[in-house]
Formats: sequence, C-alpha cells, structure tokens
Amino acid sequence: MKTLDASASGVYLITVTPFNEQGALDLVSTDSMVDFYLASGVTGLTVLGIMGEATKLTAAESTRFVERVLARVAGRVPVVVGASAPGFAPMRELTDSVMALGASGVMVAPAPTLRTDDQIVAYFEMVQETLGPDVPWTLQDHPVATGVQMSPAVILRIIANSPSCVMLKHEDCPGLAKLSVIRAASQRGEVRRVSILAGNGGGLFLPEELARGADGAMTGFAYPEMMVGVCRAFAAGDAERTHDLFDAYLPLARYEQQPGIGLAVRKHLLAERGVIASASVRKPGPKLSAADIADIARLTVRQTRRLAQLDHEGPA
Amino acid sequence: MKTLDASASGVYLITVTPFNEQGALDLVSTDSMVDFYLASGVTGLTVLGIMGEATKLTAAESTRFVERVLARVAGRVPVVVGASAPGFAPMRELTDSVMALGASGVMVAPAPTLRTDDQIVAYFEMVQETLGPDVPWTLQDHPVATGVQMSPAVILRIIANSPSCVMLKHEDCPGLAKLSVIRAASQRGEVRRVSILAGNGGGLFLPEELARGADGAMTGFAYPEMMVGVCRAFAAGDAERTHDLFDAYLPLARYEQQPGIGLAVRKHLLAERGVIASASVRKPGPKLSAADIADIARLTVRQTRRLAQLDHEGPA
Amino acid sequence: MKTLDASASGVYLITVTPFNEQGALDLVSTDSMVDFYLASGVTGLTVLGIMGEATKLTAAESTRFVERVLARVAGRVPVVVGASAPGFAPMRELTDSVMALGASGVMVAPAPTLRTDDQIVAYFEMVQETLGPDVPWTLQDHPVATGVQMSPAVILRIIANSPSCVMLKHEDCPGLAKLSVIRAASQRGEVRRVSILAGNGGGLFLPEELARGADGAMTGFAYPEMMVGVCRAFAAGDAERTHDLFDAYLPLARYEQQPGIGLAVRKHLLAERGVIASASVRKPGPKLSAADIADIARLTVRQTRRLAQLDHEGPA
Amino acid sequence: MKTLDASASGVYLITVTPFNEQGALDLVSTDSMVDFYLASGVTGLTVLGIMGEATKLTAAESTRFVERVLARVAGRVPVVVGASAPGFAPMRELTDSVMALGASGVMVAPAPTLRTDDQIVAYFEMVQETLGPDVPWTLQDHPVATGVQMSPAVILRIIANSPSCVMLKHEDCPGLAKLSVIRAASQRGEVRRVSILAGNGGGLFLPEELARGADGAMTGFAYPEMMVGVCRAFAAGDAERTHDLFDAYLPLARYEQQPGIGLAVRKHLLAERGVIASASVRKPGPKLSAADIADIARLTVRQTRRLAQLDHEGPA
Repeated sequence: MKTLDASASGVYLITVTPFNEQGALDLVSTDSMVDFYLASGVTGLTVLGIMGEATKLTAAESTRFVERVLARVAGRVPVVVGASAPGFAPMRELTDSVMALGASGVMVAPAPTLRTDDQIVAYFEMVQETLGPDVPWTLQDHPVATGVQMSPAVILRIIANSPSCVMLKHEDCPGLAKLSVIRAASQRGEVRRVSILAGNGGGLFLPEELARGADGAMTGFAYPEMMVGVCRAFAAGDAERTHDLFDAYLPLARYEQQPGIGLAVRKHLLAERGVIASASVRKPGPKLSAADIADIARLTVRQTRRLAQLDHEGPA
Repeated sequence: MKTLDASASGVYLITVTPFNEQGALDLVSTDSMVDFYLASGVTGLTVLGIMGEATKLTAAESTRFVERVLARVAGRVPVVVGASAPGFAPMRELTDSVMALGASGVMVAPAPTLRTDDQIVAYFEMVQETLGPDVPWTLQDHPVATGVQMSPAVILRIIANSPSCVMLKHEDCPGLAKLSVIRAASQRGEVRRVSILAGNGGGLFLPEELARGADGAMTGFAYPEMMVGVCRAFAAGDAERTHDLFDAYLPLARYEQQPGIGLAVRKHLLAERGVIASASVRKPGPKLSAADIADIARLTVRQTRRLAQLDHEGPA
Repeated sequence: MKTLDASASGVYLITVTPFNEQGALDLVSTDSMVDFYLASGVTGLTVLGIMGEATKLTAAESTRFVERVLARVAGRVPVVVGASAPGFAPMRELTDSVMALGASGVMVAPAPTLRTDDQIVAYFEMVQETLGPDVPWTLQDHPVATGVQMSPAVILRIIANSPSCVMLKHEDCPGLAKLSVIRAASQRGEVRRVSILAGNGGGLFLPEELARGADGAMTGFAYPEMMVGVCRAFAAGDAERTHDLFDAYLPLARYEQQPGIGLAVRKHLLAERGVIASASVRKPGPKLSAADIADIARLTVRQTRRLAQLDHEGPA
Repeated sequence: MKTLDASASGVYLITVTPFNEQGALDLVSTDSMVDFYLASGVTGLTVLGIMGEATKLTAAESTRFVERVLARVAGRVPVVVGASAPGFAPMRELTDSVMALGASGVMVAPAPTLRTDDQIVAYFEMVQETLGPDVPWTLQDHPVATGVQMSPAVILRIIANSPSCVMLKHEDCPGLAKLSVIRAASQRGEVRRVSILAGNGGGLFLPEELARGADGAMTGFAYPEMMVGVCRAFAAGDAERTHDLFDAYLPLARYEQQPGIGLAVRKHLLAERGVIASASVRKPGPKLSAADIADIARLTVRQTRRLAQLDHEGPA
C-alpha cells in the first residue's frame, strides 16, 4: 500500500459509490470505475466523501466498498477514506477497519456544531488523539457542507498540534487568499509544510489555486482528465494551455457543480461514458429530468467540439 | 414485549447511556438505571436519543446497550429506540436490529437539511417506506436540535401519510399553540389521533402542555418522579398540586436544561443519587466545574426543603 | 445625563416600545413605562433592543422614542441605546443622533454573518472606529439571536482593543463558565475590568450569574422588582433570600421567556399592570391565544400567593 | 416613468453603488454608470440590492442615490429598488419615498427567520398589505443570501395572494427544475403569469434558464453586454451563439461570482473599464490582493481574445 504523506500532489479523485438500479452496491462497477480513474492519470483516490454518499451506507457496506476499491487499486496509488463522524468511537472504528484493509489515510471534516476557534482546535486535538500517531490524515475544510469556517490561523494551529495531519483539502470560498496565507506560513518555516489539494467549488478555481501554491486537486468531476491535464499543463509551466483546457471543460463542470443535482449529473455522465453501469443515486437524492439530460447532452457535444478545436489549434 | 401505539400516555423517560470512568459502556449501571426509572413510575423508556449520546456509540455498542435495557425491562413497559440517521440504509439496519431484540418502536427526527414543507413530507414518506408497516414510530419535532421547523400543517400531513406513525414527541417552542392545533384536528376527526408526548424545553412547560391536551411527557430529568407526579396530579384534576410539584422542581430542572452542560448536570445528579456509577460523558462533551457542582448542591438542598414544605402543607 | 462606565451595576432594564392598538408609537405609555421602571429600582435603562422591536421602527420613530425616554428619565439613570446595524454608516448615524439627545452609551451585537475569531475581532475594531473615542459602548453577546458565538478569548481581545467598550451584556448559554473566565481575567489584571450585566435566558440564571461575578442584570421581565430584589438580596449577602425571591417569580419568568411569544406575554403583563395602555406588538409579531392568557392568569395568581407566603415566613 | 409589469423581459441589471476613495457616495460615477448600463442594452435597472451595499447606506444616502439614478435614467427603462427590511414600517417608508421619486417598483426578499411554508406565505401577505395595491413588486428568491427556501408551491401561493407581485427574481440552486414548475403552472392557467428574471449563481446558468422559460436575467456582472448578448441570441433562436457568447465570458464571470470577494472584483472591473471612478467598497467589505488583480488581468485578456476569435469565426 502507498503511504499518504505531505509530499502528495496531482489529482486525488473523489470517487462516487456505484449502485445498481435497485440501489444495491455495484461492486463490478466499482472495479471499472477504479480502472477508469487510474487510466485517466489520477495520483490518488478518495472514497466515502460527501459525493460518495457515505452517510447512506451501512457500516458493512462501507467496509465492503473500501475493500473492493483497495483490492482493485492494488497499491498503485494512495487511497484516502472519509472518516468524519459525529462521535469518536465510530470514527475510530471505521478508521481501524479501513487502515487494516490497506487504506493510506483518512479525511476528517469539523463537526457541524463547532463555531469558535478554540472549539475547532480542541475538536481536532481529539481527532488526532482518536486516530493516533500512525494514521496519516487530511483536514477537510469545506464550510459549504459543514457550516464551519476555519480561519487560516486555526488551520495553522491544527497543523501545529497534529503531527499526523499531512494534507489540507481546501474547499473554502473565497479561498484563494486563504490558500496563499497557509502556503506562505510554511514557506517562512512557521509551520510544517503539508500537502494542499484544492477543491474550491468542485474544482471551478483550479488554475488559480495551482498558481497560489496548491499541490493539486482533490475533487470529483466526470472528466478527471480535465484536472489531470490542467495540473500537468501547470506543472509544465504552460499557463495558457492550463487555462485553455480548463475553459473547455468549464461549462459542463459548472453544470455538474450545481448544488442539489450535482451528484446525479456526475453519475449520469459516468454512466454515459460507460464507467459505471447505472446512474442510480440512493434516496434521499436528486433525480434528473428530461430537460436536465438535454442540457447535459448539449454541453457534452459542445465540450467535445471545443476540445477538438484546441487540439487543432495546437500549442499557443 | 409491549407494543407502542397511539394510546400511549404518562412518562416515557429519555434515558442516558451510562459509561464508566474510562468511557466504556457500563452495563451494570444500565441495569440499575432501568430499575430506578421503572421504580419511579414511568410508563415507557426512550433510549439512544440525543441525550443518550447515540451518535457517540458504535453500531455494536448501540445494539449491546439496547439489548441490555430490553432484557432488564423484560416487557414491563414499552421501549422506544432513537433511529434517526443521515441515510435510510443505516436507519433500516438499526431498526431491524432493535425490533428483533424486542423494542416497541423507533423514533425519527427530520434530517437537518430539510427546509420546505414538501421536502419534509417527502422525507417522512421515505421514512415510512423504510420502516415498513410493522414498525410503530414516533415523529420527533425538535427544531432546536435539528434546525427543522415543522408547521402543524406538515405534521398533520405526515400523520395522514404514515399509517404506522403513532406518536408525536413535541419539543417545539413556542409549542403550546402548535400542540393545541394538532390536538384539535384529531378531535374534529380530520386526522387519526396519535399520542402526543411533550418535552418542550426539556419538560419546562409540562403543566401547560398537559392542559393543552398532551398525553404525557417524553423527556429526561434526573428526577423522573417530578414528571410522574405532575402527570398524576394533572390526571387527578388537581391543577394546583400539578403546579406546586412542578414549581418545586423547576429551579433544578431549569439548571439541568442549560444548553451545553445539561447532560453533564443530569449524569452528575444520577450518579449522586446512586443510579449510575459514574457521571462520565463521552467526548466531545461537557464537564462540570467546581462552581457548577456547588450550584447543583445548593439547588438540590433547596429542592428537598421545598418538597418537604409541600408535604407538610398537604393538599391545598 | 449619566455617563455609562465600567462601574455600572444593578439592573439595566430592557424596555419594550409601547404602541397603541393601531400600531403607532404610544408616547404617553412611554412616560408611564419609564416611571414604572424607575420606581421599581432599576439603575439603568436599555432601549431599542431586540425586545424593543427596534427593527420595526423607522429612523424617525426611533429618534422620537429615544428622545421621549430621555426626557422622562431626565438624567436620573443612564440610558443605553441598541445601535446594532448591518452597516457602519447607519450605526454611526443612529449613535450620533441618540448621543446628541443625551443617551449614555450604545450597545452593539456582532453582525450575524461573522464566524471566525479573527472576523469577530476585526468587526469590533471597525465598531470602535465607527463609534469613536467618546461613545461608551456595551458589547452584546447573544448567540441565540445573532448566531455568533464569541469565545472568552475573543471577548477579551475585543475589550483589549476597544478603549470605550465599558460593559459586557452576557447572554450566552452555557454562560456561567464563560462569565467566570472573563471575570477571572480582569481580577488577574490581564485585561481592563468592564461591567458585566447578565441576561442569560432572559434572567433565568440570575442568582448563579451574580455568584459568578456578574455586576447585575440587563434583561427584561414584566416584574423588574424581581431582578432588583434578587440583586439587592445578593448584595446583602443573603443567598437563600436571593433564591427564594427568584424561585417565586421563576414559573412566570419561564413562561415569559418562551421563544416566539415571549414579547407578547411581557406586553400583556405590562398592560395588565397598567404600565402601558396596550399590549400591541407590531407585525410580524406574536399574538396570545385565550389559552395563553389563561396560563398567564393562573401563573400570576400563584406568584402573588407565593410572594405573600415568603413575606409571611420572613427572613430565613 | 416606466411601469414595472409582468411583461418585463431582457436584462434588469443589478447596479453597484459607487463610492469615492473616502467611502462617500460618488454621484458623478452614478451618472456614468447609468449611462454605461443603458448603452449596453439593458432593459431595466435594479438598485439597492445586496450587491448595491444597500444595508451600508443611511436612509438619506439611499434616497439621494435612488434620486440620482432616476434622474439620469429619465424614464428610459424601469428602475426597481430593493426594499427588503426587517420591519414593515421601514419597508413602507423606503417604498413610499422611492415611488414618489419615480421608481417603477420594489423588490422584497423573505425575512431570514422564516422557515415553514405557512410562515413565508403569511409574511408576503403582510408585504402585499404594506406595499398596497399600487406598488408593483418583485419577489426575490435567493436562499444563499437569506437562508429561506421557498418551494414552487409556496411561490405559487404568494403569486396567487399578491395582485401586485409582477415578477420573480429567481436565484435558487438547483433552480432549473423550480423555474420549469413555476412556468408550467402559468402555462396551464393555474396561476397568473409573472415575469421571471433569472440570476442563479449570478447568471452562471443563464442559457439553461432561458431555455426553461425565463424572460431574461436580473443579475450583475461587470460585462452586462454578456447578458444582453445571450438574451438576444436566445431570442433569435440561435442556441449555439447563445452558448458561445456565454462560454466566452464564463471564466471571468465565475471569478466575479466568488463568494466573499465578488463585489470587489466587479467594482475593480467597472473601474478598469472607466465606468466608475473608484473600486471602493464600504466596510465591512472585501479587498483585492495583488494576486487577485493579476488573476483578473489574465482572465480579461483571455476573454478579449476569445471574443475576437468568435467574431472571426462568424456565425456557426
């Protein structure tokens, strides 16, 4: 198994959890999904996130799904498992179980009730104590989902307090300034450097985030080749190519990031692409209308055309 | 085992979950706690509620605790189990497991993300479908904890839609008007009559709620004899005795209902009374200071004195 | 006019704003209300608070009301004016206007959008700058109304940053520990001492707050003689009398503090007592039902009887 | 003056409020801004919205600004004024004042405390009563800002109850389905047809919203020619041109719609374009960093290039 450490970079793709039409876990699609993501060039996977419908799974289903993903990945890239839980006993239990199966680390978001800086810092002291010194973990900063706002100062305190926190999943908006502050603090040696993977608005600010010092992306999108391509173009120093690629995918990415139906859009696209057998989302969850599907079809055609134009234009 | 049905009345006591000083489940104290509650005259028990630290237990711990409670109760009163969960698969799993162990029914609160009437009604249609026709259930209306406000109209729609919803746990504030409206609707025959057990502010409005038509209380307080006594005095038609008893306990009840440290106060009192071995609350959870404990000591002494005065004064 | 400074103590009563049955400002009742409050022994008044329906007044009405209160008070006690506003220009305008009329200071709560410690501290730096060095002000800590949680550390930073912040209106729950921490910090000389007036749950924890070091109360209740009496008994060192008085009023105080209809209860009681001519609350606002009014009548009779008993029992 | 009625279509541009570097109202820039917007082809203006920093203005400043805008517009297009207020007396006062000055109507969002369908409907009954039969008004549905979710059913009830509600400003996400439902209801004759102007995500879904039946857009963006062009291309039946134009502006529009710094980005762009003299935002408000400004510069250059390409490609 791959270790998760502070040197992580590239694209840690947040996977969906495939279900069949009856809503049961689809383990065959789990395999094809893993194959697809790895073939697209991602450098890691994140499972059981919000977009992985983690809270809709039983404990046994969670374990079965993680086990299947890990078996298919077979150590080729690190796999991070979402372990946020309302209590520390369930967090510990899930963590122990997935680490034993071969996960590379876990990801934890603040509990939704936290408000003050001191409450947040105290919470992550308990997280660090719960996970122990041997489990590398990712701090998930996602105020839209949790309602918890963590200032740069708080994030730096958490990193200082938590020897095994090796990564920040950065999803705050406006987050570019925040990203700059945190990166600058480690550059000045004020805090240990952690990997920062960005996911602001579901990747809708990726070029700008890379320019501010993000090491890559941790987010989902039915076209992971976008994030991979953007990260590679940026690493190659080609700013215009970075933006050209990003802009070509942006209309569809924007549509997939709609609050509410986003996950249904993503699964629909993955099913259309043959990555998973069914676009089924567990209840309570969104369903697409015929008009939504027509929107997606138009955007997909346009995206394909725009990408062909870019190829034809060649390097600027 | 006792069935939960719409005729339920009296006091359904919301139990704590006892832990030892190391934070492990204390099953011996579980037995003594059940004995104490039953001896106090309660007509039912509710376990794994918010004040039962349900979210801090692993699935295995939840099952072990429910099993122990049911064994000790041995069918003498109905036992309701909190089954709110972010997804329907875990809700179903927990429900199946506790009903198989002999629970009388479950209790479900709306998911915190729900807002509009239609969203709430649709959610409980899925709850009813998930639980199936054979599991009697209690609708928990507790906006302070969930953030979800259910209007009387919505509650009546849920009851109409859900043949196995037999009880409303009423905890909204200001809730007296709401309680009146719901009771009036069944009195006019517009909706099936369900049991309404009140818990507004943790029982801080019990005399008024009974006067508006509540069938009893479902709440916690380290002195369950208060709720039992108040319900009995009310049933006996003795309004002044109802209030005299209530008022005698009110200063301490108010202190126990403080947001934040309330559960620690309750467990401290239960430990002081010898009901459970330790006042331990699992992290993240409140701790009492010396000043808090001094407050409680003073209030307890005053309560004892006031109750003795009332006994001495005799019936008004 | 009286100055507001850090030595303030006793009861700063939060006034209602009287309207006639047509919803117009009732300035005659404003006079009788001021007379009543001053006769009850309060040491200050606070106007245009949340319970003063401040946001329902036009700017001209606010000024007319404050002017009338100040004229009637005629310098006998300090008058604090609520000046929270979504923008600093309106805050400055209102402050200038009421200070020119003779107010003793203003009260400001954090804007509801604030979350992190740094955001809150930055906000109050702007408040201090807006109000300038010559306007004494009260920091209002009322998370139930604002949604903003200020940790003790943040409150201490605000006091340190704000030379003209002279008072903390403490309304957080659980707030006793917070009050202790802030008081201890000034006792150790770590921060300038400010007056702390308590209003937790609308005064429902007054005896305990005084014991933790509060200098008095800033809250409303239709029986201000309760707060005055409790503060005096406490100052006289008579702990049992403090609690006896408090407990006698607690059942009605609890009823008046119900979220939602509380203000209607308070105005109903003030109208019943002849303090104001009409119980009218401006829309959108609560209305009492016949059942509510019957509840209040019963509680009032019981309160009178209990107070008579206490008088008869005499000093413990 | 132009009347606001249910036939409104095209682009109702939400204006900023220009300040000088010292933070004072800049009335000269107000004129140039109005000229710029009208020259770009907008069919209406909306002032004193959230992005107009309405809450940071004193009542006198609001009136002075509206007066200046109306004088400059001189009846060429309708002007809608944001009139949301925490109380009905201030709402009435502002409405009377701006209608007397020649405004075409007002816009009202639900109060942030509203939750249930019945609460929301009752609130807008009071709004209709407050505004009276002669003031045409726009219902603003903007849950991200207000926290209030209005279901399609609720919006239809409000329209049915409010004879002078002539327009829906639709900003909910995911809002496409909602828009379809509301449009279908009037097409089936179940409810009076109102104008629907869309602003989902600040215009980030404009092509899709038009396809679902929106009559145009009500939103802000420093390039109003985008919204005007998109609406015209759509009206001309040229779906590909609609999307081509939209996509060309999308990268910058997305950047301008960042929560937090969006308004600073918009004012920076307007100042760069010479529309207003200063990008100044009143406190509390965001400031751009050098890195933000570099981002904007790059996106602007790329946008200009992409638009030139489109012109060169000509009609598809």
